[in-house]
Amino acid sequence: MAARNEQSAEERLIARYFRPLAGHPGALGLADDAAILTPPPGCDLVLTTDGVIAGVHFFPDDPSDTIGRKALRMNLSDLAAKGATPLGFLMSLALPASIDDGWLAAFATGLGADAERYGCPLLGGDTDRTPGPLSVSIAAFGAVPHGKIVRRATAKVGDRIVVSGTIGDAALGVKLRRDEGLARRWRLSDTMAAHLRERYLLPQPRNALADAVLQNASAAIDVSDGLAGDLAKLTRASAVAAEIDVARVPLSDAVRAAIAADPAMLETALSGGDDYEIVATLPAEKLGAFNAAAQAAGVAVTEIGRVAAGEGARFVRDGKALTFAQPSYSHF
Amino acid sequence: MAARNEQSAEERLIARYFRPLAGHPGALGLADDAAILTPPPGCDLVLTTDGVIAGVHFFPDDPSDTIGRKALRMNLSDLAAKGATPLGFLMSLALPASIDDGWLAAFATGLGADAERYGCPLLGGDTDRTPGPLSVSIAAFGAVPHGKIVRRATAKVGDRIVVSGTIGDAALGVKLRRDEGLARRWRLSDTMAAHLRERYLLPQPRNALADAVLQNASAAIDVSDGLAGDLAKLTRASAVAAEIDVARVPLSDAVRAAIAADPAMLETALSGGDDYEIVATLPAEKLGAFNAAAQAAGVAVTEIGRVAAGEGARFVRDGKALTFAQPSYSHF
Repeated sequence: MAARNEQSAEERLIARYFRPLAGHPGALGLADDAAILTPPPGCDLVLTTDGVIAGVHFFPDDPSDTIGRKALRMNLSDLAAKGATPLGFLMSLALPASIDDGWLAAFATGLGADAERYGCPLLGGDTDRTPGPLSVSIAAFGAVPHGKIVRRATAKVGDRIVVSGTIGDAALGVKLRRDEGLARRWRLSDTMAAHLRERYLLPQPRNALADAVLQNASAAIDVSDGLAGDLAKLTRASAVAAEIDVARVPLSDAVRAAIAADPAMLETALSGGDDYEIVATLPAEKLGAFNAAAQAAGVAVTEIGRVAAGEGARFVRDGKALTFAQPSYSHF
Repeated sequence: MAARNEQSAEERLIARYFRPLAGHPGALGLADDAAILTPPPGCDLVLTTDGVIAGVHFFPDDPSDTIGRKALRMNLSDLAAKGATPLGFLMSLALPASIDDGWLAAFATGLGADAERYGCPLLGGDTDRTPGPLSVSIAAFGAVPHGKIVRRATAKVGDRIVVSGTIGDAALGVKLRRDEGLARRWRLSDTMAAHLRERYLLPQPRNALADAVLQNASAAIDVSDGLAGDLAKLTRASAVAAEIDVARVPLSDAVRAAIAADPAMLETALSGGDDYEIVATLPAEKLGAFNAAAQAAGVAVTEIGRVAAGEGARFVRDGKALTFAQPSYSHF
């Protein structure tokens, strides 16, 4: 009676590594085919999906505890930009045969720490063997008051443009990860080099800013494919133009040092992607309230430009518009 | 001004192939980072995720119009077994460089036909290049009246066990797909061979049965990893045993022919997986109402056994319990 009472290896794997992350009652202990989620009264559910593939979105030898966190944080960043509060996530995991228990244990520990930190428990998932690279696909869910999702398509002429954190760290971090000699050529201190590497390895999604965005922004997008490209998407969707004052774009000391050593790094910083910052538009009269809310949330925000009539995102420096060879990261 | 108003290749791909599938207003025309879903009043949202990887869940040369449909139908089958009505889905697509426009167009057309057929529109997605095999990961959403999801863990001693459709077709279909000579050895007519191949290529999820399950079942699971293995999961979760009368398990003419030629195919049929039928438990007094609802829905259902005290799923033939070498499909 082999069918009697033995769990399959897949069930054991789920019970051992992932059930501890599934504290939400709707997860049904990961012991069903499906999960249950009921949005808070008066709220819409916000849905997003994003994932990582080894060799595409992370280096196969990146620490395994960062990989699930990166995938989850990419989704959390999308929720934050929409003004949504995280509720939970589903995960699809494709594992090559080379993955061992130690790798999985660290993967699950890292992911669990973030699920806890961001209040976003695992609701369910799917685990498969793959002959290809490891991949983690996540679908994340959040709540916004009914009808209040912050969209891309609703920026208005005259709005101010703000961005959180600093731009370009991860794009330069991945260059540094590929060629460690750049640290010397860019004259980076060890701290600066570590900062760039860390920003690539592990995004810092701005969920603390979600309520400030919800209360004040006319439109928003998270910066995942580069500030230039994502602003272009927002302006296209809103049928407006954006004028960005390059001198005001917030840059870390490390990125400033790299640009000083190699001016071409300015384009990389503005268009490289993986920032996971939020760029938002808002009426001038809401700027004070937004800045106060951001300060209370502990997130730096900077005004970098204005929404204008027309089309496209213009990045202006010393009175001249920059031209980008490749304005946005694209897989295709 | 390259950043001005040009869509990226990824945006063009989404607009061309996938926007036509995203008729739901909450999909925001696939032009945002996220989608909006509001469950009908008084309903919980049911969430599930499942996916397919080339070379694992389908043959790389399977017709491209079937591949997205297979992934979607696997998820629809999970929703049906929970008594849920489909609302929509998110899709994560990892595409190797070899995929061309013709492949994508057929993929999207097939998927779109099913999204329409099952009332389950595309809400959003994520598209990446992969150095590995093509994969399609779907997260699907359905609605059930609040608190009414049909679980695995709630079968009761004395309940009858019913199953939809026929069992084993896909498991034998994949054997046939790998070795066409089996058609002769199994003495299959062309129609029988085509039936088995078709059942592997394209699941027939029993969403028409969802309301009958919701109204009558005490517990249910969809049969994706084999009748024996999935019943074992249900009995484990419910802390009960199941006694199955093998002679009553519904088999197609093709599966009967294969078993007649090779008796080992009985175990393959009962434990092989990819059936995407529903096995449900229900109190004896609800059997009449369930059968009537199934008939009205046009789905064949068969009583195959009873829930008993104890543990494990026993498959009894001629008074003896069968022993399975491998009771359930598992990737690990």
